[in-house]
Amino acid sequence: MFDKVNDECGIFGISLKENSKDLIENLYLGMFALQHRGQESAGMSYYYNNKLEVIKSKGLVAGTFFDTVPFNREAKTGIGHTRYPSKYSSNFINAQPLLFNLNKGTITIAKNGSIPKAKQLREELIRDGAIFQTESHVEILAHILSKIKNDNFEEALIEALSKFEGAYSILIQKDDMVIAIKDRFGIRPLSVGEIENGYAFASETNALDLISAKNVRELEPGEIIFCKEGVAESKFLPNIQPPKQCIFELVYIARPDSTVFGESVHTARVNMGKKLAIINKNEVDVVIAVPDSGNVAALGFSKESGVGLDYGLIRNHYIGRTFIRPTQDMRSFAVRIKLNPVKPVVDGKRMAVIDDSLVRGTTSKRIVKMLKEAGAKEVHMFLSSPEVKHSCFFGIDTPTEKELISANKNPEEVAKEIGADSVTFLRVEDLKGCVKEPDKFCFACFDGNYCIEVE
Amino acid sequence: MFDKVNDECGIFGISLKENSKDLIENLYLGMFALQHRGQESAGMSYYYNNKLEVIKSKGLVAGTFFDTVPFNREAKTGIGHTRYPSKYSSNFINAQPLLFNLNKGTITIAKNGSIPKAKQLREELIRDGAIFQTESHVEILAHILSKIKNDNFEEALIEALSKFEGAYSILIQKDDMVIAIKDRFGIRPLSVGEIENGYAFASETNALDLISAKNVRELEPGEIIFCKEGVAESKFLPNIQPPKQCIFELVYIARPDSTVFGESVHTARVNMGKKLAIINKNEVDVVIAVPDSGNVAALGFSKESGVGLDYGLIRNHYIGRTFIRPTQDMRSFAVRIKLNPVKPVVDGKRMAVIDDSLVRGTTSKRIVKMLKEAGAKEVHMFLSSPEVKHSCFFGIDTPTEKELISANKNPEEVAKEIGADSVTFLRVEDLKGCVKEPDKFCFACFDGNYCIEVE
Amino acid sequence: MFDKVNDECGIFGISLKENSKDLIENLYLGMFALQHRGQESAGMSYYYNNKLEVIKSKGLVAGTFFDTVPFNREAKTGIGHTRYPSKYSSNFINAQPLLFNLNKGTITIAKNGSIPKAKQLREELIRDGAIFQTESHVEILAHILSKIKNDNFEEALIEALSKFEGAYSILIQKDDMVIAIKDRFGIRPLSVGEIENGYAFASETNALDLISAKNVRELEPGEIIFCKEGVAESKFLPNIQPPKQCIFELVYIARPDSTVFGESVHTARVNMGKKLAIINKNEVDVVIAVPDSGNVAALGFSKESGVGLDYGLIRNHYIGRTFIRPTQDMRSFAVRIKLNPVKPVVDGKRMAVIDDSLVRGTTSKRIVKMLKEAGAKEVHMFLSSPEVKHSCFFGIDTPTEKELISANKNPEEVAKEIGADSVTFLRVEDLKGCVKEPDKFCFACFDGNYCIEVE
Amino acid sequence: MFDKVNDECGIFGISLKENSKDLIENLYLGMFALQHRGQESAGMSYYYNNKLEVIKSKGLVAGTFFDTVPFNREAKTGIGHTRYPSKYSSNFINAQPLLFNLNKGTITIAKNGSIPKAKQLREELIRDGAIFQTESHVEILAHILSKIKNDNFEEALIEALSKFEGAYSILIQKDDMVIAIKDRFGIRPLSVGEIENGYAFASETNALDLISAKNVRELEPGEIIFCKEGVAESKFLPNIQPPKQCIFELVYIARPDSTVFGESVHTARVNMGKKLAIINKNEVDVVIAVPDSGNVAALGFSKESGVGLDYGLIRNHYIGRTFIRPTQDMRSFAVRIKLNPVKPVVDGKRMAVIDDSLVRGTTSKRIVKMLKEAGAKEVHMFLSSPEVKHSCFFGIDTPTEKELISANKNPEEVAKEIGADSVTFLRVEDLKGCVKEPDKFCFACFDGNYCIEVE
Repeated sequence: MFDKVNDECGIFGISLKENSKDLIENLYLGMFALQHRGQESAGMSYYYNNKLEVIKSKGLVAGTFFDTVPFNREAKTGIGHTRYPSKYSSNFINAQPLLFNLNKGTITIAKNGSIPKAKQLREELIRDGAIFQTESHVEILAHILSKIKNDNFEEALIEALSKFEGAYSILIQKDDMVIAIKDRFGIRPLSVGEIENGYAFASETNALDLISAKNVRELEPGEIIFCKEGVAESKFLPNIQPPKQCIFELVYIARPDSTVFGESVHTARVNMGKKLAIINKNEVDVVIAVPDSGNVAALGFSKESGVGLDYGLIRNHYIGRTFIRPTQDMRSFAVRIKLNPVKPVVDGKRMAVIDDSLVRGTTSKRIVKMLKEAGAKEVHMFLSSPEVKHSCFFGIDTPTEKELISANKNPEEVAKEIGADSVTFLRVEDLKGCVKEPDKFCFACFDGNYCIEVE
Repeated sequence: MFDKVNDECGIFGISLKENSKDLIENLYLGMFALQHRGQESAGMSYYYNNKLEVIKSKGLVAGTFFDTVPFNREAKTGIGHTRYPSKYSSNFINAQPLLFNLNKGTITIAKNGSIPKAKQLREELIRDGAIFQTESHVEILAHILSKIKNDNFEEALIEALSKFEGAYSILIQKDDMVIAIKDRFGIRPLSVGEIENGYAFASETNALDLISAKNVRELEPGEIIFCKEGVAESKFLPNIQPPKQCIFELVYIARPDSTVFGESVHTARVNMGKKLAIINKNEVDVVIAVPDSGNVAALGFSKESGVGLDYGLIRNHYIGRTFIRPTQDMRSFAVRIKLNPVKPVVDGKRMAVIDDSLVRGTTSKRIVKMLKEAGAKEVHMFLSSPEVKHSCFFGIDTPTEKELISANKNPEEVAKEIGADSVTFLRVEDLKGCVKEPDKFCFACFDGNYCIEVE
Repeated sequence: MFDKVNDECGIFGISLKENSKDLIENLYLGMFALQHRGQESAGMSYYYNNKLEVIKSKGLVAGTFFDTVPFNREAKTGIGHTRYPSKYSSNFINAQPLLFNLNKGTITIAKNGSIPKAKQLREELIRDGAIFQTESHVEILAHILSKIKNDNFEEALIEALSKFEGAYSILIQKDDMVIAIKDRFGIRPLSVGEIENGYAFASETNALDLISAKNVRELEPGEIIFCKEGVAESKFLPNIQPPKQCIFELVYIARPDSTVFGESVHTARVNMGKKLAIINKNEVDVVIAVPDSGNVAALGFSKESGVGLDYGLIRNHYIGRTFIRPTQDMRSFAVRIKLNPVKPVVDGKRMAVIDDSLVRGTTSKRIVKMLKEAGAKEVHMFLSSPEVKHSCFFGIDTPTEKELISANKNPEEVAKEIGADSVTFLRVEDLKGCVKEPDKFCFACFDGNYCIEVE
Repeated sequence: MFDKVNDECGIFGISLKENSKDLIENLYLGMFALQHRGQESAGMSYYYNNKLEVIKSKGLVAGTFFDTVPFNREAKTGIGHTRYPSKYSSNFINAQPLLFNLNKGTITIAKNGSIPKAKQLREELIRDGAIFQTESHVEILAHILSKIKNDNFEEALIEALSKFEGAYSILIQKDDMVIAIKDRFGIRPLSVGEIENGYAFASETNALDLISAKNVRELEPGEIIFCKEGVAESKFLPNIQPPKQCIFELVYIARPDSTVFGESVHTARVNMGKKLAIINKNEVDVVIAVPDSGNVAALGFSKESGVGLDYGLIRNHYIGRTFIRPTQDMRSFAVRIKLNPVKPVVDGKRMAVIDDSLVRGTTSKRIVKMLKEAGAKEVHMFLSSPEVKHSCFFGIDTPTEKELISANKNPEEVAKEIGADSVTFLRVEDLKGCVKEPDKFCFACFDGNYCIEVE
């Protein structure tokens, strides 16, 4: 409904030394904290009564899923998943964790990320006798693992992962063992935390905060942590590469209260706003954010420029995913339903409007129109990221290049298209200056330099 | 909740020459007619827009499933399934049809029946690299099929089925082809019918009646009908055996308005009642059925004996599967909620009470008690089947031998246990006299003569 | 969907000496037993924590209502209601029991029946200042009661009821008192039963059976039983009239295992079937019922005539109220979905088909057609009631006279209309011969003799 | 769950000259915009086919209610309501609009506000013969209206309202007329807007924005606008009083993009923050808001003080009303689930934390603790309102005085209680300086000066 790129899921897991009556509640809370990473379905697996059980529901963690969670059961290991519907179908059959009975035992898998060569790998495996029942990429990993002849599960898994080229952070549950995995470029985030008697793993650290786990560190690229009965052991994939962490996690995906890749999301976004202020060439009277995606960068812009911040657009948080437009006419209300201008802030002003990125430009066009109708004298759009010119194949849901406005128009043309008086993007160099270790990031959606061969 | 054996599913399919706006409605109606064969879940697949789509829901065909059926779509092939939860778990993941993407294309499978060596087959396949995601036996067939190296799908399927030893009637959908299959002993029922421009397949002929299809015949043991674009072609499995049709379909499972295995269910049950009357040695004043399982046999008993039939027990049909007892105390009401005696029919009478079979005896015990409390002078139980002494491994859900009352007690002891004045079973020879072709049937649950090696 | 008259509700109540943990469960079970009298909504009130609480849900007693019932609460009084949507709207706002706060305290009311002058009474009360929030007739009674200036509640209620002319059996709950009421003609059924420490009241005695209450007797016309803390006291309305009990309760509405108006429903229906056999002039080979409405009368017909009873139509009980036809085409399937002929019973036969009554004739027409298509040589319809020529205003939901087939056609014309070879109705005199006390009954829908002035 | 006062509902209505296919959609959108004023239930009435129809559902406007809205119907008048559960029970029976059939016709009523003498009025009316079926205050108005002997509806309504002393903004629908009403003190907000061919009425102007209606003005105290077929006519209640507009609408209840009482909510809150900065005596390093209630005031504080604003607490918007804590232990997570600190903003800082008000202090206590655990050096709480020392009886849901922290403790004691280094409240004089027309407001919750006699 709204013109945003989207992450493909949040993952969370816990492994304790002993059974605990809190495990399932904490697992649930961790998933709840990662709700923003995926609202299509929620699922968890846990080890109970010497068996892996899986529960999944469509919709939110606090929706019908809640009613199915066995809060009164004691367990010591579990993994959870919040799913965003990616390029492949939104079919519920793809909801994770998926359970597989194979020659290495029974496992469940929850993944955040994407495998660029998934189609080809899948076809090869099928040709070779494998059967696929879902469209999920994790089913590919299960089949690769199943074909490996090695009774040592840890070795077999490492061998399988080395054949599973892609961008992924994965949690696998095998009986009372939880395994946390990062691809060899470390593209997608995954942090490890410490809790009493065990460890927790989360896509973002705000999930660790919620269960009072201490954030220890990000996993290394290619790291595999086998965690059983309170003991965690790290191994590594072969052929580890220089990191290529997804910069979009800092630009838009992650919550500002999280740390990902060892970087504070809040701090990075403040820096992005400051950079925008530095490169700004327009005189403006007020700075506003497109809430909530532009909030933190707008703060930085204001600080750096000395132009006052204000709240010019109010967001209605009751939309959720349940708002389905009944008629074609209501479609045009879409942005209006979500955002409403605050007239005294807007009227007669030359405005700097801060957002994180421009994808197709459709929402921005409506926002500019809304602000002008509310009396804005000038609307200058600022994006805390460079022009998105290339599709992502590493776990961010982007449209094809044909649909990316910046793949087809320069900033002046974009400004004209969306009705703004100007449009300013950060450059890749600017963005690099906003994080602590710029060389560790992937900027492929801006510059087309993919670290893995793509379609 | 009630002490009955249960079938493991109903299957229904249609294959037309051309797309039709009636196909999905007729598919739905056929499933509706087979609701008594399984109430746990309902599912269908159909070929739409050059793709196999699958929809499934928990519960009844006329329940939430109804809301998901795309009645307005045109299609020319589809298969449907009503599922009874069998020995393996009632987990929704097992709901059929199941869809498999394999090296022979994409197929959906709906099955009625059981594979005695399922566990062993599954373990072998897993050892060999196969991955199982459900507990359903049809997943075994998919894996066997996937391993066969033969580009000719029909030949490959026949080869796969010949390695899939068991009792089954199966419908497979592959694109716009529907394939109807019977195991080589012909244990479970499956009839073929003719409709305008095509064919229909159904576990029982009442489903053909509902869509105004003409009942043509039962499939032969080991027959495989490939039906595509209005043309049906029969092939056969190798090593076909003398038929071993499930006699319990006639005793209890099938609806009396159906023909199964070429035998009228109604007529067979009237004959069973007559036989019971012939072997009866007690003086009785009235004949009543345990509704609805004993209805038709009671009619036959009355006709043969000249003793008047009456309705002594009224059944509440609003129970469905939704009645869950809130307290332990309500458990004892279970039979009462379902059945209530009609006092003027019962009071002061010597009664012949006709039911189809005795499994554990728990429900019968409560019925006898209820009738005695309503004033019955004598209660003589008559079962229109022999003593069930052996578990079924061929698609009927029976308890273990330990729980089968007749595996452990003779009729006198059974009578004592359930509080009846006498209990009379048909003998296997009697039952054979009730059908047209007795040699074609399996009586293993009575005599232990299994045609396929079992666990 | 099917061409039947329908009752307008079942009522059930319990009053105990002391709080009991079984009260709510027994209340629920009593309602469950009266489900056939109304499937539109279910509701109960009970006295808990010194307050009247009301719960109601759309649909079946064993449906969503079940989930709302507080089975673990202890209470000593409660009343329940199963509602059939009558001439006035099916709007949920009319679901009973309704709660009223008025100058005599707080009361809840559950009613079975109808008030012929409801519209006029309602308009008078509104003119006089009363406010109506529902379309239910019980709201009229509440307003009449409220206007009476008498601090003695029992006297005030009797005065109110004497102004509330109509056909009704009512249960009122006022704190820990349950009041059972019958109109002064005793038109609608209501029985009182004894249980440990208290009394139960039920539209039909099968509800008393289910909670193991002993059936004591029907209430008298105009009787009002005030039941509090285990003590029951009878009072009477002024101007009590000779009874005019609804004969349709015996013909069709009540369950055969019930006693209503002191008459066994089963016995009365057997007698009706016998009478039909006596007045029959056609040679027939077999007797079948339209299930379940004609079941018991068919038995009587067979007994009397000596012609064999058989089961020629099988009913699908999975329809419930959830079956909504998706397309106009499926409408014609309506009867088929419910009933299917048993070919070997029908083929080549001259059939006596027994049903309880003919209203519009639409369903019968389809049944005759279905039987003829299944090979019936002759179809002779027999109705265990006279020609329905007049609408009921006393609690049975009948169409207007214009729609009543027998108000407009004689039996020969009816036979032609529905395609039958003949149609035979009982005469009123015949029907009188089927019950113990014929002078106590109302036959107005047959003869137009209304005991209360109607619209 | 969270320690906030709450408004008791939002109301919205439209009256057009002619039927329009947009009316119901616009009615729906207006309600959606007022969702923040009440999430317990949603309801609307509209005039269709010469009849008033009412639909209501539990929960959100975009929840199950959405599915019941007949978007394809043409209508010209309608009113809607979003309900907050107030002191009287959350029972669904109280969901508005309520429909009343009375001697002046059929009307529906939707109200925002409260009647201090409701209990007494209700008891008098009941004594006088009125029947109450709900706990809603609007039922009182209906009864007063019903008792007035005057065939002129407009005069009768004005007479009724003059006896209905309280704080209320009301919408009444009578056939194709919509009537907008404000009490004679003008305590609760209600604005009128113009749309093509008619008028709209809304608790807040953001609802007018959403349907592109032009905000005309607030209703005057005691004003009654009768709006029919595109013509609006104003009348007035007798004995109109100097306005006493609820200041809490500006402090907390209304959305910042709304105008209420002719005052911009945003501007008023910026002023409040500025005043807080002026009276502040503490040195602080950073200003943060408790989101979202303190957002705008924090902006004003930062502007005035020159201390940088930052986002130190992140709010999870996926909570909604569905989050029910499964265990007692999860209760302590309540604040955490909603808010999480942003470490780099908090760590080592002396913080000014801005919120709108302190009621019980329970949430603030947890926020202070959370910030201190995240490293805050000092936490100074600033409230953009005075100490709440008195309960509201005029439509804001406040606890009793016993529970109000400031009724029992001075600021120093409050600071100690919640663990803050200091707590600063605005004084009433300060607050007066934040709005354009301070004399028009009610400050009773701060100073106890009630304009209407209360319990």
